Amino acid sequence: MSKIFVILSLILSGLILFSFQSANFNDDDELSIDSLRKVYSKPTSQWPKPTVDAGAVFQELGELPPSPVDLKNDSVKSVVELGKILFFDPRLSGSNQISCSSCHAPDLHWTDGRQVSIGHDHLANIRNAPSLENVWFYKRLFWDGRASNLEEQAGSPVAAHNEMHQDMKALSKKLSKIKGYQPYFKSAFGSKEITNKRIFESLATFQRSIVSRRTPFDRFLGKDKKALTDQQLMGLHLFRTKARCINCHNGPLFTDNEFHNDGLTYYGRKYEDLGLYNVTKKPEDVGKFKTPGLRNVMKTAPWFHNGLFPDMDGVMNMYNVGMPVQRVKPEQVNDPLLPKNDKLLKGLKLSKAEKDAVVAFLDALSSPAVLVRVEQLPQ
Amino acid sequence: MSKIFVILSLILSGLILFSFQSANFNDDDELSIDSLRKVYSKPTSQWPKPTVDAGAVFQELGELPPSPVDLKNDSVKSVVELGKILFFDPRLSGSNQISCSSCHAPDLHWTDGRQVSIGHDHLANIRNAPSLENVWFYKRLFWDGRASNLEEQAGSPVAAHNEMHQDMKALSKKLSKIKGYQPYFKSAFGSKEITNKRIFESLATFQRSIVSRRTPFDRFLGKDKKALTDQQLMGLHLFRTKARCINCHNGPLFTDNEFHNDGLTYYGRKYEDLGLYNVTKKPEDVGKFKTPGLRNVMKTAPWFHNGLFPDMDGVMNMYNVGMPVQRVKPEQVNDPLLPKNDKLLKGLKLSKAEKDAVVAFLDALSSPAVLVRVEQLPQ
Repeated sequence: MSKIFVILSLILSGLILFSFQSANFNDDDELSIDSLRKVYSKPTSQWPKPTVDAGAVFQELGELPPSPVDLKNDSVKSVVELGKILFFDPRLSGSNQISCSSCHAPDLHWTDGRQVSIGHDHLANIRNAPSLENVWFYKRLFWDGRASNLEEQAGSPVAAHNEMHQDMKALSKKLSKIKGYQPYFKSAFGSKEITNKRIFESLATFQRSIVSRRTPFDRFLGKDKKALTDQQLMGLHLFRTKARCINCHNGPLFTDNEFHNDGLTYYGRKYEDLGLYNVTKKPEDVGKFKTPGLRNVMKTAPWFHNGLFPDMDGVMNMYNVGMPVQRVKPEQVNDPLLPKNDKLLKGLKLSKAEKDAVVAFLDALSSPAVLVRVEQLPQ
Repeated sequence: MSKIFVILSLILSGLILFSFQSANFNDDDELSIDSLRKVYSKPTSQWPKPTVDAGAVFQELGELPPSPVDLKNDSVKSVVELGKILFFDPRLSGSNQISCSSCHAPDLHWTDGRQVSIGHDHLANIRNAPSLENVWFYKRLFWDGRASNLEEQAGSPVAAHNEMHQDMKALSKKLSKIKGYQPYFKSAFGSKEITNKRIFESLATFQRSIVSRRTPFDRFLGKDKKALTDQQLMGLHLFRTKARCINCHNGPLFTDNEFHNDGLTYYGRKYEDLGLYNVTKKPEDVGKFKTPGLRNVMKTAPWFHNGLFPDMDGVMNMYNVGMPVQRVKPEQVNDPLLPKNDKLLKGLKLSKAEKDAVVAFLDALSSPAVLVRVEQLPQ
C-alpha cells in the first residue's frame, strides 16, 4: 500500500502547485459574511439555491433526526439491551476473541480508526469499517449495499472468515450454553430460546439506537445563529454551491443514500474493488460505493471505502480536481466493465481558503463520542 | 466511566465560564509576532529564557534525533526484520488472535485510539496504549516505569492475562513449530534456535527503529523559518514560557523522561491508579506517571495514562487551572500515601487565544503515519 501512498503524495504535491487561487468569495458582494449569515439564518427553505445537477437525488440539509427506536417502549428496550450485550461479546466469534465492538468501538465513533479492519487470525479486510452512528438511516448496508436491512447485515461479519469467523450453525447452540443469557432473551422475546434470528434482530435493533449527538450545525439550524463561525458559514455555503458536496452529501445525515463511483476502483489492478457491481452485476455499477453520511466525519478518519486518505486536506484536494480518472488502454475501449467516474464529479477550482472553509464546516458537524461499555458479560 | 465524563464535562463547562481573558500577548510590545519570529529564528541557544522552575529536569527543544538502530548494519537489520514480523504475528498470543500491533497499530501512530486497550477475552486494560514512535528515547518503559529497557518490557504484554495471555513457558516451543521462522532466526542470531530471549530482543530492536517523521517544527528549526504559522510561533513561545509546558515536555522529544503526578490518581476511589508507587513503593511516587513525548500528540488521542480526555481543548483547560486537586478528608491528613500534585503544576491564566496558540503549536509537531504491514507471516 505504501507505494500507492508515495504515488498519491506526488500527485497531491503536484495538485497543490497547480491549485487555483482565483474566486475568493470575499470579493463577491453577494457573498459577504454579513449577507451569508443573514440568509442562512432563515429557515432552510429560504436558503440560497443549491448547486445540484440533474440526476442528483437531492434533499436539503437538516437537523439530526431522532432514531426510529422507541426506548420508552419496554419491549423494544429489552431487545436493545440484549443487542448491546451481544455487540460487545467476543463469544459471538469463532475464537471467542473478537466482538462487533472490536471494529466498531464507541470511543472511536463506532469505527476502528484503521485503514482496513483486522479480523480473525489477523486477516485484513478489504474495506474500511464504517461508523454505526445513525446507521438506521441507510436504505442499504455495507459499502456495496449487499444487505437491505440491519438484520440481514448483522450475520455477515459474524460469519466472514476474515472477520469473526463463527460457524453459523453452531452460534445459537454456543450462546444457549451461557445460562446468563436466558433471562435477557426471555425479557426481549418472551421465551429464553436462543436462535440466530433473535441474535441478529437484537443486534440490528441495538444498532438502530446508535445515534450521534447534536452538533454546532444543529444548534445553528435551531436558535443559536452564532453556533457557526464565519469560516464555517462560508464553508456551509460553499458545501451547498461551488464545492458541489451537496450533490451527494445531502439531507439531515449528509447522504443521498445512493451509490457513486469516485474513481477509486483500481480496475484491473491490485486492490481492485468493483463495489455495487458485485451485488447488481450491472456494468454501470462498477466501482460504485455508498455515499457515507458526514456527521462526525472529522472524527472517523481514514476516509473512502478503502481508507485511503488519512487527512481531510488530501480528500479536498482530490475532489478539487474531480477525482482520479482511469486511463483507458487500447484493449479496454470496448470493455463494458470499464468503470466510469460519476458525472456529478467536476473540477472545482476552489482556492486554499475555500477548501479550508469547507473543512471548517465539516468540523461543525462534530459531536463528542457517546461512551458505551458492557462491563460484565452474562456467564 | 461515563459518569466520570459527565462530571468532568460539568467541571469543564464551569472552567470555560471562569476562564481568564487577560494577558493578551499581542499587547506586549516585546512579544510582537515580528520580534518573536526574529528571536525564534536564531539558534535555540539564543531563544528567550524558558520559564523553568527549580527542580525541573530541563533540556531545550530540538530537532528529531535519529533512532540508535543502525539499519545499514546487516546483522541489526536482520534482527529488526524478524522483530517486525513477530510484532504483527497474533500467534504470540494465547488465543493466536492478538498481536503487538493489535494495540499498537502503525496507521494509528502505533496506538489503538481507544481510551484503554482491549486484550484477551475482551478484558479491558487499565491504561491507555502509548505510541511506540521514538520509544527508544525513554529511559524507563510503561506509564509506571516498571521496565528499564524494551527487552524487559516486551514480555509483559505477551504474558499479561488481559493482554496477549501467552504461557511464557510454551512460547518458544510454539514458535519453534513454525518452520518458516527458522531462517529468520538464523539470519538474525546465527542459529535457527528460537528462545524467548531472542524473541524479545528482536521485538525490542524493531521497536527502537520506530520513529516519527520530520515535522513543521523540525523544518522550522532547520532552514525553513516559515514552517510555523504566526499562531504556532506564539504557541511555541507560550509553550516555553507562560504555559509552562516545557517544565516537563522538553528536549527533542518533548519529555523530561521523568514521572509526575498530574492529579489523576483517583486515590481511594474506583479507577485508583498509584502509578510509579507500584514500582518504587516510595510514598512520594503515588500517582506519578511518565511524561509522554509530544511528537504527534495531536494524532494520538485520547490522552493521559487513563485515556480520560478525548479532546485537546479539555486538556488545555485542565492544565490552565492547575489540574484537579484531591480534597483531603479528615482521616487522610496523616495518610503518608495521600497523593500530592506535582509542584510544577500551577494555574496558568491563559486566555482562549493563548490556549489555541499552544494547541496550534502542538499541530506543528505532527507528521504523517508511516504505514507498515506484514502481509505474509511465516508458516
